[in-house]
Amino acid sequence: MGSVSHDISLSPQYAGLTTNAKRMVATLDAACQWGNTSDGGMNRLTLNDDDKRVREWFVAETTKCGCTITVDAMGNIFAVRPGINNDLPPIAIGSHLDTQPTGGRYDGILGVTAGMEVLQTLHAADITTYAPLAVIDWTNEEGARFPPAMLSSGVWAGAFTTEYAHARTDASGTTLRDELKRIGYLGDVACSHTAMPLSAHFELHIEQGPMLDAVEQPVAVVRGIQSIRWYHIDVVGREAHTGTTPMDRRSDALLGAAEMIVATNKIVTTGPLYERQARATIAVIDSLPQSINTIAGKIRMSLDVRAPADADVAEVDRLCRQQFEAIAAARGLTLTIDCFWVSPALHFDPIMVDCVRAAAAPLGCTMELVSGAGHDSAYTSQQVPTAMLFARCRDGVSHNPSEYTRPEDVAASTEALLGAYLRYDDYLRRTTEGKTVAKKA
Amino acid sequence: MGSVSHDISLSPQYAGLTTNAKRMVATLDAACQWGNTSDGGMNRLTLNDDDKRVREWFVAETTKCGCTITVDAMGNIFAVRPGINNDLPPIAIGSHLDTQPTGGRYDGILGVTAGMEVLQTLHAADITTYAPLAVIDWTNEEGARFPPAMLSSGVWAGAFTTEYAHARTDASGTTLRDELKRIGYLGDVACSHTAMPLSAHFELHIEQGPMLDAVEQPVAVVRGIQSIRWYHIDVVGREAHTGTTPMDRRSDALLGAAEMIVATNKIVTTGPLYERQARATIAVIDSLPQSINTIAGKIRMSLDVRAPADADVAEVDRLCRQQFEAIAAARGLTLTIDCFWVSPALHFDPIMVDCVRAAAAPLGCTMELVSGAGHDSAYTSQQVPTAMLFARCRDGVSHNPSEYTRPEDVAASTEALLGAYLRYDDYLRRTTEGKTVAKKA
Repeated sequence: MGSVSHDISLSPQYAGLTTNAKRMVATLDAACQWGNTSDGGMNRLTLNDDDKRVREWFVAETTKCGCTITVDAMGNIFAVRPGINNDLPPIAIGSHLDTQPTGGRYDGILGVTAGMEVLQTLHAADITTYAPLAVIDWTNEEGARFPPAMLSSGVWAGAFTTEYAHARTDASGTTLRDELKRIGYLGDVACSHTAMPLSAHFELHIEQGPMLDAVEQPVAVVRGIQSIRWYHIDVVGREAHTGTTPMDRRSDALLGAAEMIVATNKIVTTGPLYERQARATIAVIDSLPQSINTIAGKIRMSLDVRAPADADVAEVDRLCRQQFEAIAAARGLTLTIDCFWVSPALHFDPIMVDCVRAAAAPLGCTMELVSGAGHDSAYTSQQVPTAMLFARCRDGVSHNPSEYTRPEDVAASTEALLGAYLRYDDYLRRTTEGKTVAKKA
Repeated sequence: MGSVSHDISLSPQYAGLTTNAKRMVATLDAACQWGNTSDGGMNRLTLNDDDKRVREWFVAETTKCGCTITVDAMGNIFAVRPGINNDLPPIAIGSHLDTQPTGGRYDGILGVTAGMEVLQTLHAADITTYAPLAVIDWTNEEGARFPPAMLSSGVWAGAFTTEYAHARTDASGTTLRDELKRIGYLGDVACSHTAMPLSAHFELHIEQGPMLDAVEQPVAVVRGIQSIRWYHIDVVGREAHTGTTPMDRRSDALLGAAEMIVATNKIVTTGPLYERQARATIAVIDSLPQSINTIAGKIRMSLDVRAPADADVAEVDRLCRQQFEAIAAARGLTLTIDCFWVSPALHFDPIMVDCVRAAAAPLGCTMELVSGAGHDSAYTSQQVPTAMLFARCRDGVSHNPSEYTRPEDVAASTEALLGAYLRYDDYLRRTTEGKTVAKKA
């Protein structure tokens, strides 16, 4: 691995340029001022008042470093610092500032603040890069409030229409568009890769898994993102009295659902699917009518299926459908399976991945991973060269208040990000300079 | 069965006295004017605006028949028609007008309206019974809004304090006392069997099971109520990312809960517990944080266990605890089991049960059952002689909008109720007349 025919060397002008670990940690702390919880975690659902406040802070801080702000129709914020060749679209460093309802301080937030640290490093050293630099806060990456996840980078990439995305509702029925408008982030620039083009997209993210912790390295090279499908599962039985209805005359929707949850787990914890790291999870469940002495008549569940290979996700899909249907038939239940989101496995840009490798190697970091989680980079990679770096997180715990990345790992991963970014900027300089480039958009 | 040494014959003055089937069906229809749903069912949660309206109707209708109204501190309504010996506490016919959120038109409502039909029959025929008659609407029998069930007959019987009952909250945090006050049914008479004494309590209820349907009889004699326990089950695991957390490093609270649901079902569907008609149901489930890509960290479930014999309920309790603990240990989960309500098996008053037998026999009804559901009669029987009658319901379906009792079964069961009630009133006349009775209260 690591051998490419392209020149990704770092130009001498950047010798000695490093990020500032202390400033970086301070920026990260500042970004966690709004929506933090007493257990040390974060609860900053997208487009709530805390998200509005952190956005305002992001805009103020990046403006101080000479950036121009663009907000698009999905509330994505692009803070752009000019380069030498402003006919080129910016090289972006992006991630997200929203969190899970019981989330941590690093998922997404590390990526945006590391981009801000790269920006501050260049600004403090008064360096003008070749291409412009964009630091991006993508809206609603988590999808915890407005499913599906990575909605706004998805719109930017053309995977969803703006109309579809605007009409997403939260649990209380409020639309995403209304919330964008309410907090003042419904921008008038179209959300698209043509209206707001990029040359490339880098993203630093916590691993959210245990592999770096196991090999005791702070940073990993991410080669791609695994295949993902999300489903709604509806199970309908018959409400009846728990005390009077004989056990053999029931259509108990919750019992059927429980058997499906157990079956789903078994599918991915045995045999070749387990060995090939397929994962399947049911995490959301709603039961009606929620009365202790009435057998559940209606269940709605989520299903989240992942594997490095598309074929394995398809196999989990097939087995779940087969077994769910058998359970439904045996229990007299009606079953509906709605696969509402498909994100195929993807492979990042080999030149950018090599830039990450070259930047990570001097830190002693050689681990290469396929991301288990979806990220905004999954969508940007559909339109522009994209790569990611992972930072080690303690015990691999994420989406949990105890999510933690040591300050030295924050520093190392930010340093690797800077190096990878500068190498790619140099690469663009070498391959573009002297050529006529038609500015996109 | 059916042989007693007591005289429960019907006095000749009642020959030819019958209920009016047409009027009875009209009363039942009238009682379903408020809170009915487009699917033919009812959604009249206790103390909501529809419950207020049906209470006002009940008070108006019973007042027309010469009743005096008493409302106690739990909102129980006692409509009392005087008898010859008003030193005796009334013989009551009671049930409830509240319903499940997806309930039917007969559960509870049949019992109150049949009591009203007995009242109207006596009023129309200008008959004065020996003891006074009370028709009762018991508050919050279902417990669907304010668990536990049968709360207000429970307070009357001394099983709960008024303070405890008043402090029960619904899902929105509103207390029962506030709702009583809001709808104008926080009465100033203490809720107790000493402040508002009764001589006896009859209750007609739909079977909510399939046995009468199977033998094609309209009415059953109920000998008692099975043993019941209710629980809250809390399962705590660890939130983590669904995509990045390996299957063998999870503490998935929902997966553990699903295994508990399956285990619970198996305990009562195999072996001697199944043969002895033990039943166990988990119907309410809440999962947190309810995010598709975060493994569930907290589950709260209900558990409802029943059997004709107390020992069998205790055995289900033991097996559930044993198996739940094993599941929790295997999955790295923390388990809390809170048994918050215990209602032991009970046997109705043999003389009153004989009155029901004698009234049902002329209709060709010989089936005798133990109730699978709890009823207000479970509590009244702790303080006064009590008995119940069951009316056939189609397919045994209850707690469901399709719950249905044919008009001819409504008529037959009301007729049997009248007969049983009059026989017991005669019995009290024979055993009391000429003796000095100290009036209770």
